[in-house]
Amino acid sequence: MPKTPAWNQNIGMYLSGYADGEGSFCVSFSPRPKLKTRVEVRPSFSVSQNGDRREVLDLFVEYFQCGTIRKNSSDKTYKYEVRSLENLEKIIIPHFFAFPLLSAKQRDFEKFAIICGLMTKKKHTRSVTLKEILDIAFTMNASGTRKFSKELLLRLMT
Amino acid sequence: MPKTPAWNQNIGMYLSGYADGEGSFCVSFSPRPKLKTRVEVRPSFSVSQNGDRREVLDLFVEYFQCGTIRKNSSDKTYKYEVRSLENLEKIIIPHFFAFPLLSAKQRDFEKFAIICGLMTKKKHTRSVTLKEILDIAFTMNASGTRKFSKELLLRLMT
Repeated sequence: MPKTPAWNQNIGMYLSGYADGEGSFCVSFSPRPKLKTRVEVRPSFSVSQNGDRREVLDLFVEYFQCGTIRKNSSDKTYKYEVRSLENLEKIIIPHFFAFPLLSAKQRDFEKFAIICGLMTKKKHTRSVTLKEILDIAFTMNASGTRKFSKELLLRLMT
Repeated sequence: MPKTPAWNQNIGMYLSGYADGEGSFCVSFSPRPKLKTRVEVRPSFSVSQNGDRREVLDLFVEYFQCGTIRKNSSDKTYKYEVRSLENLEKIIIPHFFAFPLLSAKQRDFEKFAIICGLMTKKKHTRSVTLKEILDIAFTMNASGTRKFSKELLLRLMT
């Protein structure tokens, strides 16, 4: 499909609408004893979907020109995901500032953008900033579950 | 918000994207002994959502100028729904022809549009057409569940 400005505008709005329902801005944490802070932080943008709507995930790849689609063999869903900090900063985040989500999920996105900004400046390698990131991230995605509690992560970092 | 052509275009694309993920075109059937065909057919377009994203449902009302939002007290979700055949024919169906869904769900929508067209021409009051509607409807929303089996409905109609 030719990428005219009208195509970009229309598909940009469409994918933001789709992501408002089905997308997720996630910041996850894992213990990493070898890191100075002992905790790794990983931001990602993802959209999950049943196989019968995989076309829309293909459209995310075509539009953003980054990210990958993986199949979850256990429940037959597909997931479009962008984990590269560079692609998040240069492609995904500018998109959702230009084509904002029209629900409360935009506030999660804005927190996500702050965290990616701090990471791009390498501030997350300092414990004091990583704690700030932890504070922000634990106010996001209220309905989600986390593998490691905030208390455990803070204990690892001290 | 002013309803400029650009607003209509942008919000139209956004809501189609949202509906691609979260919307549903449904044709349901119920036994109605007093009807000539003994089975009632009810088409509806709906979008369900948690309360924290109710803003988008309000946007559907604002954009389409029809439909209602109801709260499901059991699971705290909200549902935007259009059940009026006139509004489906004059507002909802033209919208999704102008701003098509970009996934396989568009095929469900096209079947839905055929059924609403038959109903507008009052053809569903004839058993022979109602059987055709039943055939089409039972190929839609493959993952959904139905209260009454096709066999039961056919038996009622004969």
